[in-house]
Amino acid sequence: MTGERGRAYELDRSHVFHSWSAQAVLDPITLVTGSGCEVVDEQGRTYLDFSSQMVNLNIGHQHPKVVEAIHAQADLLTTVAPTAASLARGEAAERILAHAPEGITKVFFTNGGADANENAIRMARLHTGRDKVVSFYRSYHGNTGAAIVATGDWRRIPNEYARGHVHVFGPFLYRSEFWASTEAEECERALHHLERVVQAEGPGTIAAFLLETVVGTAGVLVPPPGYLAGVREIADRYGIVLILDEVMAGFGRTGSWLALDQHDVVPDLVTFAKGVNSGYVPVGGVMISAEIAATFDERVFPGGLTYSGHPLAAASIVGTLDAMAEEGVVENAARIGADVLGPGLHDLADRHPLVGEVRGVGVFWALDLVLDRETREPVPTAEVGAMKQALIENGLLPFTAENRIHVVPPCVVTDDEVARALNIYDEVLTAAEERLL
Amino acid sequence: MTGERGRAYELDRSHVFHSWSAQAVLDPITLVTGSGCEVVDEQGRTYLDFSSQMVNLNIGHQHPKVVEAIHAQADLLTTVAPTAASLARGEAAERILAHAPEGITKVFFTNGGADANENAIRMARLHTGRDKVVSFYRSYHGNTGAAIVATGDWRRIPNEYARGHVHVFGPFLYRSEFWASTEAEECERALHHLERVVQAEGPGTIAAFLLETVVGTAGVLVPPPGYLAGVREIADRYGIVLILDEVMAGFGRTGSWLALDQHDVVPDLVTFAKGVNSGYVPVGGVMISAEIAATFDERVFPGGLTYSGHPLAAASIVGTLDAMAEEGVVENAARIGADVLGPGLHDLADRHPLVGEVRGVGVFWALDLVLDRETREPVPTAEVGAMKQALIENGLLPFTAENRIHVVPPCVVTDDEVARALNIYDEVLTAAEERLL
Ligand SMILES: Cc1ncc(COP(=O)(O)O)c(C=O)c1O
Ligand SMILES: Cc1ncc(COP(=O)(O)O)c(C=O)c1O
Repeated sequence: MTGERGRAYELDRSHVFHSWSAQAVLDPITLVTGSGCEVVDEQGRTYLDFSSQMVNLNIGHQHPKVVEAIHAQADLLTTVAPTAASLARGEAAERILAHAPEGITKVFFTNGGADANENAIRMARLHTGRDKVVSFYRSYHGNTGAAIVATGDWRRIPNEYARGHVHVFGPFLYRSEFWASTEAEECERALHHLERVVQAEGPGTIAAFLLETVVGTAGVLVPPPGYLAGVREIADRYGIVLILDEVMAGFGRTGSWLALDQHDVVPDLVTFAKGVNSGYVPVGGVMISAEIAATFDERVFPGGLTYSGHPLAAASIVGTLDAMAEEGVVENAARIGADVLGPGLHDLADRHPLVGEVRGVGVFWALDLVLDRETREPVPTAEVGAMKQALIENGLLPFTAENRIHVVPPCVVTDDEVARALNIYDEVLTAAEERLL
Repeated sequence: MTGERGRAYELDRSHVFHSWSAQAVLDPITLVTGSGCEVVDEQGRTYLDFSSQMVNLNIGHQHPKVVEAIHAQADLLTTVAPTAASLARGEAAERILAHAPEGITKVFFTNGGADANENAIRMARLHTGRDKVVSFYRSYHGNTGAAIVATGDWRRIPNEYARGHVHVFGPFLYRSEFWASTEAEECERALHHLERVVQAEGPGTIAAFLLETVVGTAGVLVPPPGYLAGVREIADRYGIVLILDEVMAGFGRTGSWLALDQHDVVPDLVTFAKGVNSGYVPVGGVMISAEIAATFDERVFPGGLTYSGHPLAAASIVGTLDAMAEEGVVENAARIGADVLGPGLHDLADRHPLVGEVRGVGVFWALDLVLDRETREPVPTAEVGAMKQALIENGLLPFTAENRIHVVPPCVVTDDEVARALNIYDEVLTAAEERLL
């Protein structure tokens, strides 16, 4: 990044402390405005946003109906304590439940994904009277006390101050932990492994399975057919609550309203954030089954937060979900994934030895980059950083993690935008291959 | 509560799961709009808001400058990933730091108070290489994994799944844990107790003291002169980070910009939320000393969240703090506390035996209700619930906790509104005394 940096950049570098980073080495771009899949920086450069910011912008930047919903609620009443009721909050719950799986009857609102998982864990523990939570090593569930220890990836390691968390390996054929050679074998062995861990921990100690329906930041891992149904069976066998984390996968990203719609599974609790309102206002929450909700009919639920069911956030949920339904946004994500982006990425992989595997569904894809297709040795993170920089210089905002590029545009992405993005990925892969192979 | 209940109420009761409650017994009022210290329900009834919702509405309902700031940012760009920069975020940090104590140079943004405390605890632990956090039994710090175990009050008990938390008694002369009879004695003994616990835990194990500058929900406990300075000395003696939680006390509530301005103390970290933007958009954060920020110059800070530094939230902070400065809102809170509300509440106490003690400062007061002034036996919670209902029926939205009524209007409250509220409290106290004494 070169050129004159403006006041926003100066203020940021002097005053703002950034997440998940060493502060001295940061050089953020500054975003000023946007529309749909495009976003504009302080120097007036336009980028194709194929990151959806933090994979939250399912409806795209500055959707007029969502902006309008925010305006209307801001003029009425911005803030209402959780102890009172508000129309926007009730309507948001109603809209969410319209997309919820069978048996889910209530919504508890939070500020984001982490505290959604915190409260789902709390419900499961109090409902079962047990304390352990089982989640994947390859996972991310948020940065607060319990959510960060439920997380399996590197972000957990410096933050392990909570008890009652157990991690397992999930199905991931390309980098199998189970010496499997087919999807069916990977699925069966991952289920066997899960059940063995349950037995070895003591089934009576396990409150919940907390799993991303499709693992997001840790690799875009779509579970093989039957895996989640198998998890449900194990949960039932041992009286364990099944929490599906749809914070990243939910509300259109996978080409269906919820990712779980594509799997034969009925969870007890579903956590959400991001896509529910595309992050226009911070919000998240837990969808709750009638059975678990009933546990707290006469007994106090011991959790809460000042902004639970914030009316401005709630209004933006109503605006977002209505616009998505009216405009076929979820259908677009499905079509783009099946007909345009999926095939386009597979075509890239055919031509680029650096791409070890293409995985995904809808507008939720990963390129697993390898130095060697045989050994599957990951491309070093520093090299992915250089590719990220090159993508930005070519006008595309990317999302990268470890040795991967996640291809995660808004659900409203057009065929033409996909074509432009594929060209940029193509060029940057070619240049990287000249350097690395 | 009687009369026809509308659609908002119906939606709430069928779909919304509420915090800190048994769900079956709820009967929330429904709020529709408001202005300043007044708020209007679905039936068109107007209430004096002496709760400030959850003690967050320092600037009052629907302040035009804050609403305008939200409109303007909503039209520009609502959401930006934390990895990028945005002008609104930088300006919000700048405005906050203008009110920060000496040595504080950076701001990390979160979604609310709980995750502010989570991240402050994380910083303290990594900065010191120690893990224990010492906080008050009488305290509330939020509902997430570490914050809820740092909390001392009843809300901690069903949620204790994190390690590394130690609790102490703070100074509270009216219900002294130290057999003290003067403020000075209470202060000295509370400091002695704190230092003894540090020594007994092993000073080398303690990362942080996490204390509300003025304890809020757990009683409105203004520390005696010298207490926080004494805590600072103990922290320095043992290399402990001092975190002051100003989530409820900060940004005008006590009649100064921060509550710590009234005490001779320089903390290392300050957590904030609520008053910083009156909760118009969910936001919170941590103010960070140069020394602690530097710990993460070359080393990755392992914490973060999708909406850290959300531009809509940031714009509402800028709008709020500018309007508060221009309109003398903090000065008004100080004047009201010293000249109108404080004297008015003391006058109530003189006439009502049910009021055991009046405590507070600015627009942050508690009436400690007792059945007997000698034994100080608390009024049972159910009775306080009945008084709460009566206050609502008389047109005042109250904040109650255990045996207390917290008198916590917006900082913009007028002399006339205070007079109207005092009349309502007076009537309800009289009726309660007829029942109870
Ligand atoms: C699957 C999943 N769960 C939870 C979270 C945490 O959400 P938040 O950052 O809003 O706390 C994330 C964030 O990326 C996520 O991807
Ligand atoms: C002193 C204090 N700290 C932290 C919190 C938690 O803030 P939040 O509800 O925004 O998580 C509160 C909330 O009341 C509080 O009063």
